[in-house]
Amino acid sequence: METTLSSSAKQSVAVPEPTVRRLPTYLNIIKNLQQAEHTYVSAPTLARILRLDPTQVTKDLSYTGVIGKTRVGYQISELVEALEDFLGFNRKHEAFLVGAGYLGSALIQYQGFRESGMRIVAAFDIDKNKIGTDIAGVPVFHLEKFRDLTERLHITIGIITTPPSAAQNVADLMIGWGIKAIWNFAPIGLKVPEHIILQDTHIYANLAVILNKLDHTALK
Amino acid sequence: METTLSSSAKQSVAVPEPTVRRLPTYLNIIKNLQQAEHTYVSAPTLARILRLDPTQVTKDLSYTGVIGKTRVGYQISELVEALEDFLGFNRKHEAFLVGAGYLGSALIQYQGFRESGMRIVAAFDIDKNKIGTDIAGVPVFHLEKFRDLTERLHITIGIITTPPSAAQNVADLMIGWGIKAIWNFAPIGLKVPEHIILQDTHIYANLAVILNKLDHTALK
Repeated sequence: METTLSSSAKQSVAVPEPTVRRLPTYLNIIKNLQQAEHTYVSAPTLARILRLDPTQVTKDLSYTGVIGKTRVGYQISELVEALEDFLGFNRKHEAFLVGAGYLGSALIQYQGFRESGMRIVAAFDIDKNKIGTDIAGVPVFHLEKFRDLTERLHITIGIITTPPSAAQNVADLMIGWGIKAIWNFAPIGLKVPEHIILQDTHIYANLAVILNKLDHTALK
Repeated sequence: METTLSSSAKQSVAVPEPTVRRLPTYLNIIKNLQQAEHTYVSAPTLARILRLDPTQVTKDLSYTGVIGKTRVGYQISELVEALEDFLGFNRKHEAFLVGAGYLGSALIQYQGFRESGMRIVAAFDIDKNKIGTDIAGVPVFHLEKFRDLTERLHITIGIITTPPSAAQNVADLMIGWGIKAIWNFAPIGLKVPEHIILQDTHIYANLAVILNKLDHTALK
């Protein structure tokens, strides 16, 4: 899958998804260097930290529109800004979350998202004990309010943290009411139309592989 | 990659990793049916919920040693127990976490892990402001204490939530001091010896793809 350059770039060039996935790591590393009061960073230095080929680093960063200088490399402050702009981390993205259980609550309380430009502004559930409460200041509404609020607030990101058996219905509801991107944490594959952006993060599958292999190894 | 059956099974049979990754989803669905007071569930019903072929369901569940009965299907209570046993969710697994930032704190506070048999018992950091504090009752130690405590407590799981530039050094430390399985949340690829179990969960890469694609779509 490919995506294309942000509005700040001169031309619309297809950006490979592996590059998009690596760019937050570049940003993280470069911000750490900035905190340590570095001003420039070279492609070979970044290549060594990321264990990539220097030509790959040059190629990845070229999509942000920033060009390194011979010998000194990239100016860090310029690169931070270009990466944040390219990734959309310096714009506001509001998200609705459906499924206010343990995982939903953890994601709402996770402050790292705010630094990346995504703010979860409301949660939805069908559990009477949760509706009307709030999680770290984020209100929990009945799922029935999802339609109205999505339309009124022009929300584009939907996060699914429901049980797997409810996830497809929630995805259908989200798509029907204008959500453009779904981030699915429910441990199940979802069917969505081609124009919908879908990303899956399956935490329990990772955990299952770890525990199952550990227990097997212990028997040897 | 393949793993093999738990001690409860009669023979050691290689279990495909896709099956291991699906089994927590079966467990989740079946527990929900149990709460709704169902006693049996058929392979076709599970296949429909999971959007799999019924023969795949039968094959997946056969690894747990439980056999469905003609017409009625699987006895739910028996299947829950077999799945929890197979996945190791009913055994205690203790983990150390390195990197007590936002993500580390969110994982420590995430109660879902406890239900899956994994408990984070201590966190480690190099930030003086964090050392000596606790996160939801879990103490934060200086990274220097990692060696002693891992050895003394026989910890087998290490969770990495450090910045990417520190992750490989932390992984090397973990491996050197007896950690058998590494769950890496730092957004960087790690090199580990073949006998070490490694799972990656890269949350920011997912977020980057979502925000970048969203911003691009909005320009159309």
